[in-house]
Amino acid sequence: MKVDVVQKVLKANDDIAKLVRSRFDEHGISCINMISAPGSGKTSLIESALKQGLSGVRIGVIEGDPETTRDAERIAKYDVPVVQINTAGGCHLESQLVLQALDKLPLNDIDLLIIENVGNLVCPVGFDLGEKSRVAVVSVTEGQDKPFKYPKLFHTANLVILNKVDLLPYVPFDVEEFTQGVQGIQPGVPILHVSCTHGDGISDWVNWLREQVMSDKNKHE
Amino acid sequence: MKVDVVQKVLKANDDIAKLVRSRFDEHGISCINMISAPGSGKTSLIESALKQGLSGVRIGVIEGDPETTRDAERIAKYDVPVVQINTAGGCHLESQLVLQALDKLPLNDIDLLIIENVGNLVCPVGFDLGEKSRVAVVSVTEGQDKPFKYPKLFHTANLVILNKVDLLPYVPFDVEEFTQGVQGIQPGVPILHVSCTHGDGISDWVNWLREQVMSDKNKHE
Repeated sequence: MKVDVVQKVLKANDDIAKLVRSRFDEHGISCINMISAPGSGKTSLIESALKQGLSGVRIGVIEGDPETTRDAERIAKYDVPVVQINTAGGCHLESQLVLQALDKLPLNDIDLLIIENVGNLVCPVGFDLGEKSRVAVVSVTEGQDKPFKYPKLFHTANLVILNKVDLLPYVPFDVEEFTQGVQGIQPGVPILHVSCTHGDGISDWVNWLREQVMSDKNKHE
Repeated sequence: MKVDVVQKVLKANDDIAKLVRSRFDEHGISCINMISAPGSGKTSLIESALKQGLSGVRIGVIEGDPETTRDAERIAKYDVPVVQINTAGGCHLESQLVLQALDKLPLNDIDLLIIENVGNLVCPVGFDLGEKSRVAVVSVTEGQDKPFKYPKLFHTANLVILNKVDLLPYVPFDVEEFTQGVQGIQPGVPILHVSCTHGDGISDWVNWLREQVMSDKNKHE
């Protein structure tokens, strides 16, 4: 009985995600869904990309949080369209919430829509938001055991970012074990080493984002 | 309809939590439920308490993770009774899982049972596990915005631990804003500053744990 209800919810989510995806196609938008634990640096990664700029790629952002508009306010400073979704305590975004957020975004003026999910390594994984690609973020302070403990996220990610690498000298983090863990779950998935405070790897991150948009544009031409 | 189902699940959890609580009372066990984001240092905090010792207080541990027995293996090295609960991808512990775990623990030889919940700031909050006290852990690398974004956890916590304070010189964390955030949600809740790698605050943490057991013992005498 309990499982039936969960299946119904997921089915409804997938149906609406298809609708969201067709809206993205219609407007030529590439969408990225960023998933991580709370405080891994998702917002800082988006800010870093906005600071560096994507040479002509127009960015929009959807921020997901249980409460507050703090993250959206951080993004709004960069003068890009941004919508904050508050889940009122909910632990993940669902496609219905994204669909509602689309009504508040200038879709014809966006090439790349970055969705920052609620900070959570478990629940967001099961919910398709209509995205083209998924980014999993882990910071080095969280420990190298995350891929082993939360394999589903790393199985579905198109990019893995190891963030806050500037803190590596101060924390007991085994980069090799982490890398092997990720590659064991999904061989070949790219792993970027990034520090938003020191700037390491930001160009790689921005290039990856630009590639997502370019491969979609090529497909449509 | 959907809300009805959620209420039923929570109701069932609460009924079983009462049963778990009566088992704890029967055996004179004080139980602590530790909740944090993934990688905030819950296991290290338990290890630090075990290393220092609680002078006569016998400790048992239940570890909750979506996958692997890594955390239980870390704890087992200290030669204390420990059970690993794997939620098979689930995002929080429920009282039914704790009840099952109790069958695998020597309840007459435990004064303090520490439950480490699945790393998640949202979902575990709604599920009573029969605990006496709740500990919320935040590491300084996660940012000072956590109490504002995840107020429910801080509303129900009996103790807040600000962990990894040895990293404060290297991260942009505003201790005052964090403290005000926590106190704004629950005035008077104790906040300990701890570093498991450098040893700061471990004595305070161990003293707090000992007080939980002593106040229960006094109540029963």
